[in-house]
Amino acid sequence: MRLLLPAGTTETALIDGISAAGATPELMVQTPSADVEILEYGEPTTAPVTPVSPTGCPTPAAVTRAVREVIDFDCVVIDAGLARSTGAPTVDLGVEAGEDVREFEAVPDAAAVFDRAHGFGSSLPDDEIVIGETVPGGTTTALGVLTALGEPASVSSSLPENPLERKRRVVDDALEASDLEAGDCAGDPLAAVRAVGDPVQTTATGIAAGALESGTRVTLAGGTQMVAVAALLRHADVDAPLSIATTSFVADEQGDRLERACDRLDCKLTVTDPGFDEGDHVAMERYCAGEAKEGVAMGGALSIVPDGEMGAVRDRLEVVCDRLGIDANGASPAVGDDPESEPRAEADREP
Amino acid sequence: MRLLLPAGTTETALIDGISAAGATPELMVQTPSADVEILEYGEPTTAPVTPVSPTGCPTPAAVTRAVREVIDFDCVVIDAGLARSTGAPTVDLGVEAGEDVREFEAVPDAAAVFDRAHGFGSSLPDDEIVIGETVPGGTTTALGVLTALGEPASVSSSLPENPLERKRRVVDDALEASDLEAGDCAGDPLAAVRAVGDPVQTTATGIAAGALESGTRVTLAGGTQMVAVAALLRHADVDAPLSIATTSFVADEQGDRLERACDRLDCKLTVTDPGFDEGDHVAMERYCAGEAKEGVAMGGALSIVPDGEMGAVRDRLEVVCDRLGIDANGASPAVGDDPESEPRAEADREP
Repeated sequence: MRLLLPAGTTETALIDGISAAGATPELMVQTPSADVEILEYGEPTTAPVTPVSPTGCPTPAAVTRAVREVIDFDCVVIDAGLARSTGAPTVDLGVEAGEDVREFEAVPDAAAVFDRAHGFGSSLPDDEIVIGETVPGGTTTALGVLTALGEPASVSSSLPENPLERKRRVVDDALEASDLEAGDCAGDPLAAVRAVGDPVQTTATGIAAGALESGTRVTLAGGTQMVAVAALLRHADVDAPLSIATTSFVADEQGDRLERACDRLDCKLTVTDPGFDEGDHVAMERYCAGEAKEGVAMGGALSIVPDGEMGAVRDRLEVVCDRLGIDANGASPAVGDDPESEPRAEADREP
Repeated sequence: MRLLLPAGTTETALIDGISAAGATPELMVQTPSADVEILEYGEPTTAPVTPVSPTGCPTPAAVTRAVREVIDFDCVVIDAGLARSTGAPTVDLGVEAGEDVREFEAVPDAAAVFDRAHGFGSSLPDDEIVIGETVPGGTTTALGVLTALGEPASVSSSLPENPLERKRRVVDDALEASDLEAGDCAGDPLAAVRAVGDPVQTTATGIAAGALESGTRVTLAGGTQMVAVAALLRHADVDAPLSIATTSFVADEQGDRLERACDRLDCKLTVTDPGFDEGDHVAMERYCAGEAKEGVAMGGALSIVPDGEMGAVRDRLEVVCDRLGIDANGASPAVGDDPESEPRAEADREP
């Protein structure tokens, strides 16, 4: 199995109230760059932030990394609009950061990005790939795209209290700014992402389409953001088998809406419960309380953990948290030589 | 263990007679991009060339990949002046392709590249790293740097017949074009690479210096090109312990010159014989005949193969060669749907 991780940013994340509390705009745009360093090196290396919420909830990258440290798998990060440099290796497809969805165009070069991602996806020699994402603000753009396509739209949040009404108002404004009404982009997925999507969706959709076309099996690793990618693929007339793998935290929040969406889009749904209720580390408690829930391919990584190994993943997560400076009991001092200089960021990236 | 692989190009490779026979300039500049795809994916994915010599000798990337398929290790490619895009993920340190050493400056921004590479090297959380290289023309720039530093200079070749005199004449011209004489850059390694080196050396030296400074153990994986990097480090007053790991093919060609160079530079030398004389595949025969010899961290990868596993590496190399379209008996059809459209390249990259 190879994990492909498009990582990027959208100005949409900077809209007031969209992003999780406690994060400055600067920290927000750094989160994907830090996430991919955690995935590659086990901790941030050059990124000046450590994505941990004020309550001690680490980025899902920590969970995906913990799985990687237990059952090694290949991982390729794609720069899908990173706004800050990263010390992790990335595939360069020439993708720019996304604009605010309330601009006329959110991803002006959506067609070119899709084409390059399609070419990359079709070049992969793998039998099977898993595609994840890290993009703050991504649930809002997911809501935007689903609405523009005319699909039933429910999206999740990295916050225990989902600011869904606020997201709906942003999407209403976004559609209006693009002279669109809900459903206007049915059958025209590139129009949807260009108007109200983000570059990570565009890249993920292109990679998936190219890979599927060349006979590679594709699992979309994520929650409601990956429902949006699946919808984009179906509206692009891609009818190959498609799976979505997410966490129990998303499934619990979404109730049967997630299952209905997958049925509608003809996607096999896999939900994995990492058993965090059996741990007593603050990171696991925060996930059980509804924080973060998904992102950075967490659900996809968990789905490949063999029976009997989930305890080892939880143990490993504690080691990763230790590296991120999260105290098991809830104190979460920032990492680095000078704790004062290392603020932490949380981003509403997924599910 | 993590392998760091700076990959790049220098116009020096285009000098007539420096590069191995059979390759066009265009194929030459594509080789590093193809090498890193082989390392990451097991075969070229987007690169339009497969680095296999006309006699059926594959790039050393095939050997390093074979080791990786037997004993998995982490690998990070650094874009150290790639002239063509690659489908493999790379760390972007803003390094440009190198100029012809016969220009006044071969690496005009050597100081800035060194600083960024140093920062990257010091950011790595690893206890131990191995640094390799892929850069066509790299033995000529190695000879240039060693000469400029005033070090005894003997370099190897990917050809059975080393065009050493031709390289010496190029280096003489290069020093003259930079208003330098042999030994003028002693104690000033950045002046040496700026005048007559290449960006891959510069990047490798910076990463090594940064990593050593932060307490990471460093092995330089390669032959005479890594002697040049070691010399640059010693002339930069880096006195931390340093190892060089190379293949028996380089050691056999260099005789005791390699050992003397390592003694002089206070480097521990590890030479690994992959036992290719026990195989009867054309790829192994060509290495035994003196082709290729080293490159893409081949010697470093072989050095970590546990006792008793080298047979598995040889078996795996046959699988990799199969993917590259090399027939076990010597025929080496190019890969791809249309064999006619897939020319092959060989590059004089190492040792």
